[in-house]
Amino acid sequence: MMIIDGLKKTIDESLEQYFAGKGSYNKMIYEAMHYSLSVGGKRIRPILLLLCYQLYKDNYIEVLEPACALEMIHTYSLIHDDLPSMDNDDLRRGKPTCHKVYGEALAVLAGDGLLNEAANLLINYSMKRGTLGLNAAKIILEASSVEGMIGGQVVDILSENKRIELEQLEYMHSRKTGALIKAAIKAGAVIADAPEEDLKVLDSFGDKLGMAFQIKDDILDVVGDTSVLGKMVNSDAQNNKTTYVTVYGLEECKSICSSLTEECMELLKGLSADTSHLQELTNYLLMREY
Amino acid sequence: MMIIDGLKKTIDESLEQYFAGKGSYNKMIYEAMHYSLSVGGKRIRPILLLLCYQLYKDNYIEVLEPACALEMIHTYSLIHDDLPSMDNDDLRRGKPTCHKVYGEALAVLAGDGLLNEAANLLINYSMKRGTLGLNAAKIILEASSVEGMIGGQVVDILSENKRIELEQLEYMHSRKTGALIKAAIKAGAVIADAPEEDLKVLDSFGDKLGMAFQIKDDILDVVGDTSVLGKMVNSDAQNNKTTYVTVYGLEECKSICSSLTEECMELLKGLSADTSHLQELTNYLLMREY
Repeated sequence: MMIIDGLKKTIDESLEQYFAGKGSYNKMIYEAMHYSLSVGGKRIRPILLLLCYQLYKDNYIEVLEPACALEMIHTYSLIHDDLPSMDNDDLRRGKPTCHKVYGEALAVLAGDGLLNEAANLLINYSMKRGTLGLNAAKIILEASSVEGMIGGQVVDILSENKRIELEQLEYMHSRKTGALIKAAIKAGAVIADAPEEDLKVLDSFGDKLGMAFQIKDDILDVVGDTSVLGKMVNSDAQNNKTTYVTVYGLEECKSICSSLTEECMELLKGLSADTSHLQELTNYLLMREY
Repeated sequence: MMIIDGLKKTIDESLEQYFAGKGSYNKMIYEAMHYSLSVGGKRIRPILLLLCYQLYKDNYIEVLEPACALEMIHTYSLIHDDLPSMDNDDLRRGKPTCHKVYGEALAVLAGDGLLNEAANLLINYSMKRGTLGLNAAKIILEASSVEGMIGGQVVDILSENKRIELEQLEYMHSRKTGALIKAAIKAGAVIADAPEEDLKVLDSFGDKLGMAFQIKDDILDVVGDTSVLGKMVNSDAQNNKTTYVTVYGLEECKSICSSLTEECMELLKGLSADTSHLQELTNYLLMREY
């Protein structure tokens, strides 16, 4: 995990620097944005972007900006998902959620601010990088849109306290969680100007990894340890949500998750580049306990 | 007002088409976004963009996408401002606000969706237009950011039930309302590749027009007709807000507003292009009753 830990540290530092010394009368919003960004995220999406870029190019410092943009989008979505009108969560990663600390109005605005800042980062990056940067910006912002992540959250909200069909569950998760994970993978490879055949393989890899990641989340919601997870176990059941576990049962879910991970590994082996770090991350995502 | 009415119609149609036939399981969010976009906005920001482009180029159809992006950003900010945790408004433009019709969770997401969609439009536009498109995207998204519109809203929220200094009031309004109006003006001129001297003049014009627009809003909040305004009169006073009217008094505000409008006219006359339509719009903004 040495490489991945190093990348995480670089991303943490880059996000930290981004907000340093900013703000005047509006200072409080920077505090709220910074608070939510800094409470212990795993940085999976930006790490995926860096690793996929690294498959083809050496200097990952070159893609820190789109990587940070991804983490800002992910964090904004968590802030808004936690709001009282949404999932009404008091804890996130073991810490009080943004609206618990800064109030609901500032939490809404901090989420808005992070999404807007992510777009600014992507625009500025495109100005430096040209077409490859713009292509990555498009991939990321389409993944977070109403056809992607937001659309998944809409279905999640609308299906609370209802039994939903498997097709709808897959729609929801492929967008709510899968879309941004897949976008991280594709954006990294696209900026690195990866060959077309590899992009196709990474596309499938992204689909499978996103699904494995979500099923693992659903499993952890049932068997996880609250103190490790940093949020309440069984929150899905309490919100009467349909999850992969309620549809397939726990054992079947573990088995699907393992199969998907193996399929991910096979796909990676089909690439021209050295995928050892990416394999390491894939394994880590399956084995994680939070 | 014939030209401006025509532009407004074109923008309305363009926004209408944008969402036509979209959505599957997530259909409800398109309805919420469409609802708030279609309840009678004056379309001032997109019209300003089209008119400023038209100072230098003929075919304003070319800039409909960034114009629509501006209106989406403006509308998202209204949806979030109206939320119970913010201004808690039930009416907007004489119709129930988004959260009153679709519930709070969907209103948060509809706002998020509109901001994200605006960014997508600007990215796609930059892919067609190249550097000039990217420059306009940067102008618009910086204006809506935490250093712009969101920052203004933060100060507005934090200063409720407090007397604030004039400097802070100016900070708040120059960002909350002024930033996006100025961005509309500059983005239109920038995409049209306007001469540098004209851009400077339009910069001052944007500052003054934005301020005149806000003072007029504050005046209308006191003397306006609820049925024409489509929202409650005296809502600022009831929320115990500092406004230009509470600072300067009503008569002085009217006088400042007139002076600013005259200064706007003078600036426009200093431009190389034919500014008659832009003068017409400037006058209309001062004379409006809602």
